[in-house]
Amino acid sequence: MTYTPTPAAPAGETDRPSLESVIASIRPVDAAAATSARDAQDQLAKPPGSLGRLEDIAVQLSSISGACPPPIPDRPAVAVFAGDHGVVASGVTPWPSEVTTLMLSAVASGGAAVNALAGASGASVTAVAVGVANPWEPSPRILDRTIRLGTADLYTGPAMSITEARRAIETGAGVAAELVDAGANALITGDLGIGNTTPAAAIIAALTGRPATEVTGRGTSTEDSVLHRKQEVVEVAVERLRSTLAAQGPDRAGGLDGAEAIATVAEVGGLEHAAIAGFILGGAAARIPVVLDGIAAGAALLVAHALAPEVLGYVIAGHRSVEPGASAALDHLGLGPVIDLGLRLGEGTGALLAMPVVQAAATAMNQMATLAEVGAAPDPDTAH
Amino acid sequence: MTYTPTPAAPAGETDRPSLESVIASIRPVDAAAATSARDAQDQLAKPPGSLGRLEDIAVQLSSISGACPPPIPDRPAVAVFAGDHGVVASGVTPWPSEVTTLMLSAVASGGAAVNALAGASGASVTAVAVGVANPWEPSPRILDRTIRLGTADLYTGPAMSITEARRAIETGAGVAAELVDAGANALITGDLGIGNTTPAAAIIAALTGRPATEVTGRGTSTEDSVLHRKQEVVEVAVERLRSTLAAQGPDRAGGLDGAEAIATVAEVGGLEHAAIAGFILGGAAARIPVVLDGIAAGAALLVAHALAPEVLGYVIAGHRSVEPGASAALDHLGLGPVIDLGLRLGEGTGALLAMPVVQAAATAMNQMATLAEVGAAPDPDTAH
Repeated sequence: MTYTPTPAAPAGETDRPSLESVIASIRPVDAAAATSARDAQDQLAKPPGSLGRLEDIAVQLSSISGACPPPIPDRPAVAVFAGDHGVVASGVTPWPSEVTTLMLSAVASGGAAVNALAGASGASVTAVAVGVANPWEPSPRILDRTIRLGTADLYTGPAMSITEARRAIETGAGVAAELVDAGANALITGDLGIGNTTPAAAIIAALTGRPATEVTGRGTSTEDSVLHRKQEVVEVAVERLRSTLAAQGPDRAGGLDGAEAIATVAEVGGLEHAAIAGFILGGAAARIPVVLDGIAAGAALLVAHALAPEVLGYVIAGHRSVEPGASAALDHLGLGPVIDLGLRLGEGTGALLAMPVVQAAATAMNQMATLAEVGAAPDPDTAH
Repeated sequence: MTYTPTPAAPAGETDRPSLESVIASIRPVDAAAATSARDAQDQLAKPPGSLGRLEDIAVQLSSISGACPPPIPDRPAVAVFAGDHGVVASGVTPWPSEVTTLMLSAVASGGAAVNALAGASGASVTAVAVGVANPWEPSPRILDRTIRLGTADLYTGPAMSITEARRAIETGAGVAAELVDAGANALITGDLGIGNTTPAAAIIAALTGRPATEVTGRGTSTEDSVLHRKQEVVEVAVERLRSTLAAQGPDRAGGLDGAEAIATVAEVGGLEHAAIAGFILGGAAARIPVVLDGIAAGAALLVAHALAPEVLGYVIAGHRSVEPGASAALDHLGLGPVIDLGLRLGEGTGALLAMPVVQAAATAMNQMATLAEVGAAPDPDTAH
């Protein structure tokens, strides 16, 4: 007996925050706390700088929380936003949309990769259906926040309406707030959706200005013909988006603004990408770290950043996905990944591998003795 | 009230295994189990290969254990081998040897970086004094396995005798066996010793054939003058070693053999490097994974590999240290690191950051559903 989502009156949907209220509550990270944290790092019982990137992460966690040492993000929550994509009809993936539903059930029953990797950091796993087209077995682990039953084919027209895109963003922000209310002190982005690397690549092409061939990867396919088809689809969709935006106003050299980012998601994106953008905004509004997974998160971050540039201070790029669009998004925003292990699975798996490193960075800052406590100092005769 | 180690009759030392018996008990990893594991990976509920390096690690764990899926290495043990170095007198570091003892006490009291990072994987932390020159506060967390009270200055002559080097190797193998007997199902290398990047670089230069300037890094110093001094010291020591070896026998184009590797450690190495080499051999003999930390482990692995080439199948390079010698050692043996976060602290910290990834690789293979169980398959119409 499967459950049929009803977009008109989604079961279990709470009141969404308005996008304006979420954006208004995002503050820049605390620069003074970052300075204190950097000074404190240099006092710990180790040669200054010898913990490398771990020190940078600890400093960022201080700037996010405003506390030095920062709280240890020991209650992370991964939200796996799931959606279907009309563009599957245009031949961009070997997998049928039904697999989105099957994998949604796998997440609910604990058999997906995201479940297996969540344990390393003690992360909770919540699946959030925002655009799953087919009915699924109901489960307490699946939140039904359906905006619509999958997008339209972005190759031939807009994937969704502006209103739907906006509503998906607000839904993601609402999920972030709910998880924080339930005790989460770090958020991890996850995604699930057959065909969803195509809209991700399209968003990234549109918001970074890079050509489709550079940001479109193989996704789950190994066939060159599928890759070339995806590149063509992305190119056509982004060209259509640009024409639409150009017809609406003057070309902006400085990049797209928030309204244009929402228009981008609506025209060439996916419901889970929009929701993840809102999830990132929601994490920043709650002043907690948001650890990003792969290409879906990269696309979503570009959207969130266009809406509220301050989000950058709150995000940690969990890993470098094999998908070239993921790297393009990170490079565009000047972010470097924590982990680089050749993953291209999604679901939040790459971010989950980074989470123990993020926790370790905070733990080291909280637990290590200082050089003074240990009694160590460089030899004045040799330290010239 | 401090404790004075007595090398003639080390407190608490158990019977060491003979080097010959350890080497004889090392078998090649199980190729059939690796094949089964690779096949099983392709059946899991994900696109084949999409977990990237994680799949390779899981396959390796199967080949090590001979089981598919492999046991989850959930009881890792890090051993921090500590020693002092006569070469400190030759100006290779700004820190005095007393800091080795201070940091040994910090490890014992839980205030060192290694303690803070061990929690991420549930690793136990054991300090093993194999060559600490100065007295330390006794602690149940510090094993006294002193071979001698620090090495002699390798710049001016042999660091230790062949007998001492061999004894240090056997001591490391003995510690591995004890930790395994106590329940450890994975070993993590750690090191502690002011000045110990100099002998590590010398071992690596000798056993890879690369010049001192390429494999010698800054260690804990930021001064160019210290770096140049270290490079000179390493160059002189390795030249002396080569003359000694050449006087003993014909030049071998295929690399140094086991006896020559022991002679290398004795001439230009450190007691902790020798002990870690034995620790690696001991892990391989016990058929469990050994996760390597930085440059000390890289040097030790070259020695262990010369003694028993089969050890390569049992080791996982935990991270890429900033020290150039660490990368030179890994490159020489064709190993790639799991983590690359700019660390140069030692103690086992880099390996400890990799350990959750190693555990996650095994967990995924044990817990994930298969594609068949999920009911997913590529669309025959699109998967052309």
